[in-house]
Amino acid sequence: MESMSDIIGKISKNVRIYKNVKIGKDVTIGDNTIIYENVEIGDNCYIGPNCILGEPLAIFYREKDYRNPPLKIGKNSIIRSDCILYAGSMFGERFETGHRVTIRENSTFGEQCRVGTLSDIQGYVIVGNYCRFHSNVHIGQTSIIKDYVWLFPYVVLTNDPHPPSDCIQGPTVEEYAVIATGAIIMPKVKIGRESLVGAQALVNKDVPPCTVVAGVPAKVLCSIYDIKCKEGTLEKPYPWRNHYTKGYPWEVKSENRLLQQGKCK
Amino acid sequence: MESMSDIIGKISKNVRIYKNVKIGKDVTIGDNTIIYENVEIGDNCYIGPNCILGEPLAIFYREKDYRNPPLKIGKNSIIRSDCILYAGSMFGERFETGHRVTIRENSTFGEQCRVGTLSDIQGYVIVGNYCRFHSNVHIGQTSIIKDYVWLFPYVVLTNDPHPPSDCIQGPTVEEYAVIATGAIIMPKVKIGRESLVGAQALVNKDVPPCTVVAGVPAKVLCSIYDIKCKEGTLEKPYPWRNHYTKGYPWEVKSENRLLQQGKCK
Amino acid sequence: MESMSDIIGKISKNVRIYKNVKIGKDVTIGDNTIIYENVEIGDNCYIGPNCILGEPLAIFYREKDYRNPPLKIGKNSIIRSDCILYAGSMFGERFETGHRVTIRENSTFGEQCRVGTLSDIQGYVIVGNYCRFHSNVHIGQTSIIKDYVWLFPYVVLTNDPHPPSDCIQGPTVEEYAVIATGAIIMPKVKIGRESLVGAQALVNKDVPPCTVVAGVPAKVLCSIYDIKCKEGTLEKPYPWRNHYTKGYPWEVKSENRLLQQGKCK
Repeated sequence: MESMSDIIGKISKNVRIYKNVKIGKDVTIGDNTIIYENVEIGDNCYIGPNCILGEPLAIFYREKDYRNPPLKIGKNSIIRSDCILYAGSMFGERFETGHRVTIRENSTFGEQCRVGTLSDIQGYVIVGNYCRFHSNVHIGQTSIIKDYVWLFPYVVLTNDPHPPSDCIQGPTVEEYAVIATGAIIMPKVKIGRESLVGAQALVNKDVPPCTVVAGVPAKVLCSIYDIKCKEGTLEKPYPWRNHYTKGYPWEVKSENRLLQQGKCK
Repeated sequence: MESMSDIIGKISKNVRIYKNVKIGKDVTIGDNTIIYENVEIGDNCYIGPNCILGEPLAIFYREKDYRNPPLKIGKNSIIRSDCILYAGSMFGERFETGHRVTIRENSTFGEQCRVGTLSDIQGYVIVGNYCRFHSNVHIGQTSIIKDYVWLFPYVVLTNDPHPPSDCIQGPTVEEYAVIATGAIIMPKVKIGRESLVGAQALVNKDVPPCTVVAGVPAKVLCSIYDIKCKEGTLEKPYPWRNHYTKGYPWEVKSENRLLQQGKCK
Repeated sequence: MESMSDIIGKISKNVRIYKNVKIGKDVTIGDNTIIYENVEIGDNCYIGPNCILGEPLAIFYREKDYRNPPLKIGKNSIIRSDCILYAGSMFGERFETGHRVTIRENSTFGEQCRVGTLSDIQGYVIVGNYCRFHSNVHIGQTSIIKDYVWLFPYVVLTNDPHPPSDCIQGPTVEEYAVIATGAIIMPKVKIGRESLVGAQALVNKDVPPCTVVAGVPAKVLCSIYDIKCKEGTLEKPYPWRNHYTKGYPWEVKSENRLLQQGKCK
């Protein structure tokens, strides 16, 4: 019987690899994964079982001379099982996913981004560095998401002001913004730097920087600096980057963290 | 090394096909796909990898004499990877899906319908022709959806007025209606022809034809004829079929499209 | 050609089983399923194709001496295709899932629970007996769900009062409570016994027992005893356990059911 450590750094069974695929050093490829043409995987990546990398674009089914655009996955990335990454997208180093993530073509992710289970990125999106998308986030085409943004479960960025039309234009989410569970951002809307969108909100107007909005449709509630900690344990919950440093470039070493952020039971 | 064009029109590796399956001419079946008993696939279909066709009904686990009802997929259909289509449903020609779609038993889809990634059709639904469901749409049992309907991401059609009960009755969505992202339609509600339901709405009353509703709970905002184009590029965004013709029987040839619909940057 | 009955009680093809796995009597394992170390499957279980049991925790990717915690699945369970159950969780007898369910580590489910297609249980949750989760339910870490609870599609239990923070604390849902489609429950909130949360609600305060709430944010509407049947067929729709007995310990035999609950067309 096999041990789990036996699979690390190896290509497992029933894997299909098409031509012109480049696989770096010490890469793990799980059972049943399919890697289509023109995929490049950086060193030390872990690709889970049942993944599809380089999924062909819609024109593959119509055009005889179809050529699969390149997919690049940066080194030290972890792609968990059952993910589908289309051809034509690029992912920076230390990219990490949950399971069953779908990311379509012509998207760019910076370094150290994480995308949660069941998220559905529709393609033609630009995502900065150190972004964290929780489970089941849906990003419409042409959305722009800058560095250090958090999107929580079931957040949707829409892009069609008069559905159905051809006039799509996705929202822009500025640095450090946080969008809570189930919020929907309407087309072209800009969410300002450091702002906080409440759960279940419907945001149909631009949100200024450092502003809290909530409701259907969303209204301005206050400044993020006005928010008090419900637990009484954090002096100021926002800007969140002052107390939440885990995995960020400004990470505080563990012995100092509790001191920095108060005691959080 | 293989080329992607090599798989077209062939049955790939590690495919399991049970007895009494009919596969038309020039059908592609991707790696690891499972086709249970009594499935019929029309000519020139593409079935992606990791699909399950003819998934057995719940009684399979209890009844020794279980017989799988037939599943029919019309010709020229594209079923992308990781889809699960239950036994007992029928799909017209040129049916097309995204990935990870689940469609349960005793459902009927007309011709040229599209169902997006992660959509979950609960069975016993009737869908007309040329319907477009975007990602992650959930359709409760006994719903009726007529021709040319658009459902956007995370739209839910519910069916139980007093959950949990046995009195289920799904909504009816009339021709050309559009339901925007995240709207929930309550049981038995009828959405009128050409009407538009706003994002994040909760619709608990019938919507008359050609009417815009929004909010939680949804209220009537105006007629669809009153909507002006936010971009100033379309004279009238609604009825949408006057300017959006792509893939429809009334399609306008490409050289006339920009003229018809105004310049849309 | 094979018959579907041929697979029952057998281990199918392309299954990978790692060391120290215990499989009971008359267990079915579908094609392509992966079972990692230290998984225990009770007698008479059905595990569908393409499942992953004992998925390793995040530290697997960092720690050389990683040891997979045990996963236990009680006897007579049905795990449908494409499910991912992490190591370190426990499921009581007659556990049943839809497809593509993800359940992370350190969760405990009682007996006879059901979890619908696409549901995403984030780990560290405690679920009682006879709970029913419909499709696409998302349960944040540290949530507590007591016996006989119903969660409908797209219900989310959140756990971070100041996202992102380390202060997570999930909601508690008391016995017999029902949460309708698309409702979001905020961190730490307690949903009282027998209560009913309306569709699309945002619940940010505790809900007393036997109470109906709805809206964004949710407000108290009435007692559950005040709800009248919209169809005129049930004398009192709530408490639901008085008329809906299917599959529960207080099940009424079928010849008496119609009598008990009125005629429900």
